[in-house]
Amino acid sequence: MAEVDFKQANESYAASFGNNGKLSIPPSKRLVVVTCMDARLHPEQFLGLDLGEAHIIRNAGGLAKESLRSIIISQRLLGTQDVLVIHHSDCGMLTFSDEQLRSKVINAHPGDTSVSEAVNNLQFGPFPDLDRSVKDDVAFLKNHPLVLKEGNITGWVYEVETGKIREVV
Amino acid sequence: MAEVDFKQANESYAASFGNNGKLSIPPSKRLVVVTCMDARLHPEQFLGLDLGEAHIIRNAGGLAKESLRSIIISQRLLGTQDVLVIHHSDCGMLTFSDEQLRSKVINAHPGDTSVSEAVNNLQFGPFPDLDRSVKDDVAFLKNHPLVLKEGNITGWVYEVETGKIREVV
Repeated sequence: MAEVDFKQANESYAASFGNNGKLSIPPSKRLVVVTCMDARLHPEQFLGLDLGEAHIIRNAGGLAKESLRSIIISQRLLGTQDVLVIHHSDCGMLTFSDEQLRSKVINAHPGDTSVSEAVNNLQFGPFPDLDRSVKDDVAFLKNHPLVLKEGNITGWVYEVETGKIREVV
Repeated sequence: MAEVDFKQANESYAASFGNNGKLSIPPSKRLVVVTCMDARLHPEQFLGLDLGEAHIIRNAGGLAKESLRSIIISQRLLGTQDVLVIHHSDCGMLTFSDEQLRSKVINAHPGDTSVSEAVNNLQFGPFPDLDRSVKDDVAFLKNHPLVLKEGNITGWVYEVETGKIREVV
C-alpha cells in the first residue's frame, strides 16, 4: 500500500473529526471484543460500535489466551465488563498445523539456525473446528481467575459470506 | 451494552453487505497494522482501509512482541509484507506500572492465592515514553529473524485529540 494513500485518507478523516477528540479513555459501553485480525472483518462496523464505545482486541484467530493481558488491563484499569469472543468462517487458522507453518518458514531460510530456533519455540494456535474454538475460548475466560466474574462472556461466529453474526455460546 | 443493540446493528450491516462476501482471505493491500485496543481508535477509518485490505492486530498498547505470532501467520501464509506500528496519545499504557496493576488485582480478591499466583506471573508491558515505545517496537520487528526483510516497517503515533497520524520512524 502506498504510504501516500493512507496519509491522504487520514487527512480527510481528521478534517471531519469534530468533537471526537474529547472522548475519555474508558469505553462507554463497558465492552471488550476479542476477534480475528482478518481483513474481511471490520468489527466496529458489523457490531455498530461508535468511536469510544468498546475495546477491540484482534490477533490471528481471535485467541482468548493471547488476549488475557489486554482483558485484564481493560477490566481492571478501564472499567469494562462484558466480553464478546468472535471467531469467523473461512478463517486461516482452520487451514494449517504448527508443524506445517514451521516447515514453511524454515524452508524459506535454508541453513539459518536463528530462524529454525525461533520458529520451533512458537505455537501458532491453529484450530480444526470453528464452533469448538469459540466454546473453548469462552470457557477459558470464564474459568480464568483474573477475568471478572461480573461480566457476561459470550461467544459468536461472524460469517464472512453474509456479514452476519451467530451466537455460539 | 445490551445484546440486542449490536444484534440489531449487525442485521442492518448484513442487509447492505452486497458483494463483500466474495472477498478472498489474503489482504489486498498486503498490509498489517499493529495498534492499540483503545476504544477511541477505529484504524480502518482513520487509515481509509476498505473491507479485505489489511490485517489489523490490536492489543493493549499495540505491542509488537505480542503481535509476533499473528504477523508471522499474516506474512507467511497470507502474503502480507508491510507493517505499520501505531501507538497513540493518552494511552492507558502510559499510566501504570506492573507492580501497581498487580497490587490492584490482588487487593480486589483478598486471600485468593489463585489470583495472586496468576497475576504475579504476568507482565503487562506498560511504557513511560510514547515515541520511544514506537521506535522500540519497530526495531524489535526489524531485527526479528522471523519477520520478512522485504517489507517496509514504519512506526506512527495516532493523536486521539485530532484524529491525525504522525510518522515517528
